[in-house]
Order: sequence, then C-alpha cells, then structure tokens
Amino acid sequence: MENKIITSAKNPIIKNIRQLQEKKAARDEQGLFIVEGIRSVSDLKHKKIKALVASKHINKNDFYKEGTQWIEVSDEVFCSISDTKTPQGIMAIVYQEHYSIEELNYEENSIFLIVENVQDAGNLGTLIRTAYGFGIEAIFLSNGCVDLYNPKTVRATMGVELPIFTNVNVSDCIQKLRQKDIEICVTDLQTDIYLQNCTFNKSIALVVGNEANGVSKETKQLADKKIKIPMKNNLESLNVSIASAVCLYQICMGLNLQ
Amino acid sequence: MENKIITSAKNPIIKNIRQLQEKKAARDEQGLFIVEGIRSVSDLKHKKIKALVASKHINKNDFYKEGTQWIEVSDEVFCSISDTKTPQGIMAIVYQEHYSIEELNYEENSIFLIVENVQDAGNLGTLIRTAYGFGIEAIFLSNGCVDLYNPKTVRATMGVELPIFTNVNVSDCIQKLRQKDIEICVTDLQTDIYLQNCTFNKSIALVVGNEANGVSKETKQLADKKIKIPMKNNLESLNVSIASAVCLYQICMGLNLQ
Repeated sequence: MENKIITSAKNPIIKNIRQLQEKKAARDEQGLFIVEGIRSVSDLKHKKIKALVASKHINKNDFYKEGTQWIEVSDEVFCSISDTKTPQGIMAIVYQEHYSIEELNYEENSIFLIVENVQDAGNLGTLIRTAYGFGIEAIFLSNGCVDLYNPKTVRATMGVELPIFTNVNVSDCIQKLRQKDIEICVTDLQTDIYLQNCTFNKSIALVVGNEANGVSKETKQLADKKIKIPMKNNLESLNVSIASAVCLYQICMGLNLQ
Repeated sequence: MENKIITSAKNPIIKNIRQLQEKKAARDEQGLFIVEGIRSVSDLKHKKIKALVASKHINKNDFYKEGTQWIEVSDEVFCSISDTKTPQGIMAIVYQEHYSIEELNYEENSIFLIVENVQDAGNLGTLIRTAYGFGIEAIFLSNGCVDLYNPKTVRATMGVELPIFTNVNVSDCIQKLRQKDIEICVTDLQTDIYLQNCTFNKSIALVVGNEANGVSKETKQLADKKIKIPMKNNLESLNVSIASAVCLYQICMGLNLQ
C-alpha cells in the first residue's frame, strides 16, 4: 500500500495537504503545518514529522525516518500542492509545537520578544530569524499576528530553534512575565526616551507592534519602559523588523550579552 | 489634443510606459521611471516630472503642475500599465536624478552607505528608507544592484530625499571617498572585530553586500575597517537591511549623531 503513487490531485490526502498549505484554520484544527524543499526538510532536526510527501524522483533513503508516513505522488500532483515556483519534490507534514509560559526556563538577563499584530509574513519571518540571531530566549506572537505556520514564514524561519508561543493574549502574557520579574519594554514613537539612553540590567521582554499602528494603546499602558529609536528626516517609522533588530542589539549591549 | 483620452493599450505612449514599468534598459535609456499612486505622486516634491498619466475619474486640478504633460487614459488602459493590484488611476513619469561624487557636499562626521550587488528590490527599499531614517548623507548603489527605479523599490522609498548614486563602480567610489578622508568600513563575517568594540570618530562609508555572498573579496581588501555583528546560535547571517540598520545605529552612536 505504501508504495502506491498518488496520481490524482483530487485524492483526499492531497486535498488535505492543499488545505494545510493554504488555510490557517486547517493548520490550527489539525495542529500541523507544511515544510517544503530539500534543505528545509533536511533541517527538521527537533521537529516531529507526521508524514513525508515526495515526488517519485526523490530517493526515499535521503529523507525517510522510522515512524513517519511516506507518501509518494506524481510530479503533477506535487506541483499542485507546492507553494513554491520551482518545486523540489519533497515536503514534510510537521506537528506544531505548543508551549506554556509556566514551564518556561530561563537564566538571568534573558531577553524575550512579544510581537503584537504583525501582519506581513515576510516581516514576521525576518523578525524571528533576527531574534534568534540575537539569542532571544522565546518569542510570543499575539493572536492578531499573521500565522507562524504559513508557508512564507515557515521558509523564512527554517533552522530557527527556539520556543515560539502562538495565539498569545498580550495582556495575560505581560502579566505572567512580570510575575517572573521580567521588565516590559515597549517601542513607542510618542515617548521622549531614546533607546540609547536606557539602562537594561535585568531580564526584559521587548514588545513590538503592527506595521501601520505600532504597539496598541492598551499594551503601552502595561509597559515598564517605553523607548524609541532616534530618527532623522521626520521619517514616520522604521520597518518593524528593522526597529526590533536595533532595539535587541542595544538591549544585548546593555545586558552585556554581546 | 491634450484632452483626448487614450483608449487603446497598443497606443505607442502606453506601450512605452509599460516598457518603463517593466524594463531597466528602457528606464536607463530614457532616464525616466514611473511613480504610481495618489500618495506617492503627491509626495513628488523635488523630483522633475515629465508627464502625469491619469484615468478619467482623477481630478486634474489635484495633481496637474505647470510644464508637465497631462495624459488621460481609460480605466482599462490604466490597469494595463499599472504595477499594483488595485490601481489608483494616477502615475507620474519622472526624470531620474544623477549625481557626481566630486560635487558631493557634506559636514564633519557624515555617514555614507555603499550597497554592493543587493538583488532583492524589497531589501533595497528597506535599506534606503532605513539609511534615510538614520540621517545618512548619500547612498551609492553598485552596478550589480537591483534597479533603484523598479516599481517595488520606488514604492518602498517614496518620500526619501537624499542623493542616491546608481551604477557605481565600488572600487572607484571607495578611492574617491578615501581621498575625501572618509573611512571605509565593511561588514565581514570572517573578521574578529565586533561592531560594538569599534571606534567611530570621523566620516565613514559603510559597505554592505549581496544577500548570499556578502561584500566581495575585492571590496573587503579596500576596507579600513572590517566589522561584524555579534550573533548567537550559529546563525549564518542577518538579512542585509537588518545588518545595515544595526551597523548604522552603532555608527551614529559612535559619532554622537543620535
């Protein structure tokens, strides 16, 4: 049975994979997402794989792992479920990971990132990669953020291994982090306090916000610190991933984490 | 004659506009580029406009300037030359600006940015906006960079008013800047010198490179300083616009330009 090649795009397994590629609701309901491409699938070290989907020119021995399902499909069918322009013939159906703030372990002078209502998948991907590069402990994505498991963000964050909390209620999250003696620092264009003049001397959660509106008023009110990046030429604001990177860099310097 | 509405997508004026949207060669040859959308066209303060192209529902008085040509087209024709999903019915044909390094005026402790072979239009747009926000004096784009005048970059850099040199030979540019006592600082993943440990105390040109390969070997050899951003988790590299932003922030701090 396992070696039978699926040749119809209307096969229910194939239809479901297409749903997982295209619809957040399907991903959420099934707790699954798709990872595509030779390098990305090879890089799935610590993730739990449900099934591998391969077109017939793929060598099973290169990818197969004990305990995962192997689904072979025709090139045509693979193209019909691929999210890329040049499909490489291999994708994995992967279990989403879920974390609880209560179980979060971290050391002194750790940094966390709370992302509120960021809408662009590319921005979210860059944000996550950057945070990983700066050694951030964990990321919290608000329930208004673009889906972490959409194909574009998945591509942009391959190889990133850190706890990412999804569908987070920001107020609750802030409250819980504060109980753990973590300082809440919000980016705010209206504040008079510049990033470079701030002291960072304990664990901190940086909150960044939506591309158009920044961090919400409600969240700003919960902040211990409000900061802004010095800007010239009356530029309205920096891209959210740029602003986050600059803040994270300065916080790392402040905490001597460079 | 001026009030005649163009209704054919095959009209030579229309065909040429499409060339200007799609082809760098056409833009270079004619020294023109297209700016599209109500806000973007309204924001064209210091740029020299050759013609305005409007669909008939646009009010001429809102956009028309003495000395520019007014081209009215049908909605259908406008859609055929628009680069956006939801065309707003107005675009401008704008003259490219060209600068000479010899005429460059700048004050003490100025910052310049040299961009070598960046390929992604989105990255270039973000880079330019960020540099503008940090008060950079001028930007030099190497002859291997994605075209400054492609529609995506044009959209991302609207409102940015600073000299941007295009088709630059990087070695020549570095030589000329050094003659003006400007220090050349290159991002380099292979160096042992971290950004935060560098002293910045004179005018500086930061060189950033291609997304996949970074700054070229040849250009690195011409540098006064090589720097890298501290990174955790063995992340290969940061996105080029992210890396540029962090470096520019630190350089601004070093030069007390915040």
